[in-house]
Amino acid sequence: MKRWNGWGDESVEFALNGDALAFLAQRVGAGTPVADAGFAQACAQLGVSRLPPHRLIEVSPEVRLRNALGQSLPDWLRLRYGVIGTAPDGVAYPESAQDVRDLLDYAQQYRVAVIPQGGGTSVAGHLTAPGGSQPVLAVNMTRMRQLQYLDTESQLATFGAGVLGPDLEAQLRARGYTLGHFPQSFEYSTLGGWVATRSSGQQSLRYGRIEQMFRGGSVETPSGTLHLPTFPASAAGTDLRELVLGSEGRLGILTEATVRVTPMPEYEAFHAVFFPNWAAAETAVRQIVQAGLSLSMLRLSNSLETVTMLALAGHRKLIGLLERYLSLRGCGDGKCMLMVGVSGRRALARAALREALVLAQPHGGVHVGRFMGEKWKQNRFRNVYLRNAAWSHGYAIDTVETAVDWPRVEIMMRSVEAAAAAALKSHGEQVHAYTHLSHLYAQGASVYSTFVYRLAGDYETDLARWKSLKKAVSMSIVGNGGTISHQHGVGLDHAPYLAAEKGRLGMSVMRSLFEHVDPQQIMNPGKLLS
Amino acid sequence: MKRWNGWGDESVEFALNGDALAFLAQRVGAGTPVADAGFAQACAQLGVSRLPPHRLIEVSPEVRLRNALGQSLPDWLRLRYGVIGTAPDGVAYPESAQDVRDLLDYAQQYRVAVIPQGGGTSVAGHLTAPGGSQPVLAVNMTRMRQLQYLDTESQLATFGAGVLGPDLEAQLRARGYTLGHFPQSFEYSTLGGWVATRSSGQQSLRYGRIEQMFRGGSVETPSGTLHLPTFPASAAGTDLRELVLGSEGRLGILTEATVRVTPMPEYEAFHAVFFPNWAAAETAVRQIVQAGLSLSMLRLSNSLETVTMLALAGHRKLIGLLERYLSLRGCGDGKCMLMVGVSGRRALARAALREALVLAQPHGGVHVGRFMGEKWKQNRFRNVYLRNAAWSHGYAIDTVETAVDWPRVEIMMRSVEAAAAAALKSHGEQVHAYTHLSHLYAQGASVYSTFVYRLAGDYETDLARWKSLKKAVSMSIVGNGGTISHQHGVGLDHAPYLAAEKGRLGMSVMRSLFEHVDPQQIMNPGKLLS
Repeated sequence: MKRWNGWGDESVEFALNGDALAFLAQRVGAGTPVADAGFAQACAQLGVSRLPPHRLIEVSPEVRLRNALGQSLPDWLRLRYGVIGTAPDGVAYPESAQDVRDLLDYAQQYRVAVIPQGGGTSVAGHLTAPGGSQPVLAVNMTRMRQLQYLDTESQLATFGAGVLGPDLEAQLRARGYTLGHFPQSFEYSTLGGWVATRSSGQQSLRYGRIEQMFRGGSVETPSGTLHLPTFPASAAGTDLRELVLGSEGRLGILTEATVRVTPMPEYEAFHAVFFPNWAAAETAVRQIVQAGLSLSMLRLSNSLETVTMLALAGHRKLIGLLERYLSLRGCGDGKCMLMVGVSGRRALARAALREALVLAQPHGGVHVGRFMGEKWKQNRFRNVYLRNAAWSHGYAIDTVETAVDWPRVEIMMRSVEAAAAAALKSHGEQVHAYTHLSHLYAQGASVYSTFVYRLAGDYETDLARWKSLKKAVSMSIVGNGGTISHQHGVGLDHAPYLAAEKGRLGMSVMRSLFEHVDPQQIMNPGKLLS
Repeated sequence: MKRWNGWGDESVEFALNGDALAFLAQRVGAGTPVADAGFAQACAQLGVSRLPPHRLIEVSPEVRLRNALGQSLPDWLRLRYGVIGTAPDGVAYPESAQDVRDLLDYAQQYRVAVIPQGGGTSVAGHLTAPGGSQPVLAVNMTRMRQLQYLDTESQLATFGAGVLGPDLEAQLRARGYTLGHFPQSFEYSTLGGWVATRSSGQQSLRYGRIEQMFRGGSVETPSGTLHLPTFPASAAGTDLRELVLGSEGRLGILTEATVRVTPMPEYEAFHAVFFPNWAAAETAVRQIVQAGLSLSMLRLSNSLETVTMLALAGHRKLIGLLERYLSLRGCGDGKCMLMVGVSGRRALARAALREALVLAQPHGGVHVGRFMGEKWKQNRFRNVYLRNAAWSHGYAIDTVETAVDWPRVEIMMRSVEAAAAAALKSHGEQVHAYTHLSHLYAQGASVYSTFVYRLAGDYETDLARWKSLKKAVSMSIVGNGGTISHQHGVGLDHAPYLAAEKGRLGMSVMRSLFEHVDPQQIMNPGKLLS
């Protein structure tokens, strides 16, 4: 069963061994485990539902609590400490577009706030129920999950928008196809959620972002249904798909989505390449991505992330051997690990990998083969379970991400890490901050930073630590000309920083768009635009 | 000097030889040349300017006439027959964003309609002045043409948005870069126009559509300035660039644009491959484009376009030899010509071409080398001059284009050609209609049809013929589920068909967006949304 107060399935544990704990203790001090609130105790906090009855709506506290929050650190703090705060008054599980239509009509009639959701994996506060007197309905889309149509000639697949990642891939794989969208939240996130938040997967270099995959569909809005037909391309005015992408539930609910699929790749491999330092590594990956090779992934860890990954990898002896070898080849302290993925026809994939290695070589790149890459692949959706394990030892893990053009990539990385350190220092704490470039483009890169720091053990202090950290890193992102999100979306947590990139007129254009389609402003109020 | 009543420079002629004229006469009957109206005679039709004076505005009839119309067939009929109808009351040539700002403030103050324009190449009526009592100002952006900044690290170039294609490429070439956007209108179209109409160039397979190239910029609107910062990618809500793309002057005026550029390719070649028939050719190109090879162009002519291109090519003896060779190899009557372009690093480009030829072979593809391809490349921007030559012999040439998913490509092609034939038959005339797929995608293709038919010799009859043709082919496009434009935009001529793909709600969303930014509705009124 899915954890109600943490990541993923209850049966899956990602334990931290003694070496790993020693490493963390050395970096930020020893953690003190915190006692979690119980499920029943948390449920008891929910008030009586204020919703008028509806055939599709469940109002039990258990269901409401399980659909109350996402995976942001403030969400975790509420759940772990049992300080639930607001929660939806009920949860609906529609099974058809007509069900969704009925629910929106009901919501308009009774002026109910509607929070569309998929697998509840938001890390930006998209799912938080607003306070105030308005009743709140969560619409959980995960029962709308079927592959409705596969057009192999046009390589298009139409799904119910609530389909979860593994289910979607399984339905396609049975027919020899893949979507290829693998965000770290893959196991619990949905197609509709990916579209609504402009998600990006680990192999976007081959498969594109969800923006490129999303070819059409159907959206139920308070003002009616928006049908988005599929065209290979169009010059006919505004591309309405772009208004749905990134709308974060403010416009309506995506009920079905048509996405671009491709035949399962014949061959897939992940290789690791080490570089002696950041400057060499960054120059190399820029040249590789600008060469336009047919790679499926480039993921560059900075030196501290490299150290961390090696420390947490287990296999102490093997890693020791690897490090001695790398040191002999010029990659000692300060080394940075690049993961290179290739997928597709065997000959072409191997040729692309060879070209990438040729470009890496003059920058001191040392190819160590597939071992680390396959290890990374095995753990690609397991790493996120680390958050549960760290918490149980008294550590919080949080992440932020942005994207900037190449001249600002390194400055951004250094500034975000320094801002996090300063913020926690003001609380008398240390942070272990490390960064990777998760998505590479000819124009620039996403900059993805992880922060590990100690829990204080009470809700207010831990919320205050997080608030300081979040504000500091967000100001740093904005101050260095980055977007407030490359792949997680805006939600509640990033909303205060959005105007910095959209400007006054851009903000008012977005607001007017949502008000036009949703004149009562019932759709996910307070998210994206605060 | 640029022709005032036809395409391109007065010094460039594309003559039709006797063979070509015999071919046309055989297809649709002998044409009768029509006498053109004179420039002075046309100028004399313009009334007195109704604009209040402004330092940036010129009001001479000569300047107004030269900025009055585009290149659609109705535009030509007005100019050739001297039936000018509406025209702007004045033309401004701003040289800075501040000039544009001043002009929009002036326009709002005096409630003047504003028609932004670049090189005046619209084939959809984007530039036509509305009738009625409101004075009309054309804002010609071509003096804002400088490369302002080239960021080689991020491969981004910022230009004044009025820069013409050849000027833009020359400024980049001097620094070793190219944009790679080559619509057939390249010589006279501008960067801003490409963005405003969602243009696509001949080598979009390598370089992308303008949507992919356009990374940011600045737009002056009646409600202020919209700054679009550059990010490699973003998940921060609505992508505001998408509201500018395809806005056709309704939102404001793009003053500068930052575009993605790449180093000049080391190698470039165009090769021709013939197929025995349409079915084989279509299957082959679908497989080639879905293989994701690094090609720069795929352009497939149907059999009648192939016949036409060979008939108009001159070189009768050489073409005769080619046809005998093709016939021996199984490509006789009904053969279809595919043009394959490759650009980039020599080894990779050649490998991609080889792969494409391997995929073509099982479908009867016969590779005839570079001769026809290089010929096509030489004439890529000259073919459009054929329209002047045909007119001088009494023939009209018009085109329409759409895009559809693969299952509908052939149906669309046949329907559009049949609709054109039926429409002109109702006027007792024949049409020579032929089609190519100009842009290929994994999902489908653009379908681009050309129509040659006889001029009647008077404005009303020729306008009636065109109206019948345009309505019939547009209805056919919409009826077969195509977009009303893949690359030309909507303007006046396609506006009646837009609702078929956008739907009621989509249309109202677009309208509300433009009304929000331009409350007085002074920006290019009547275009895109009629």
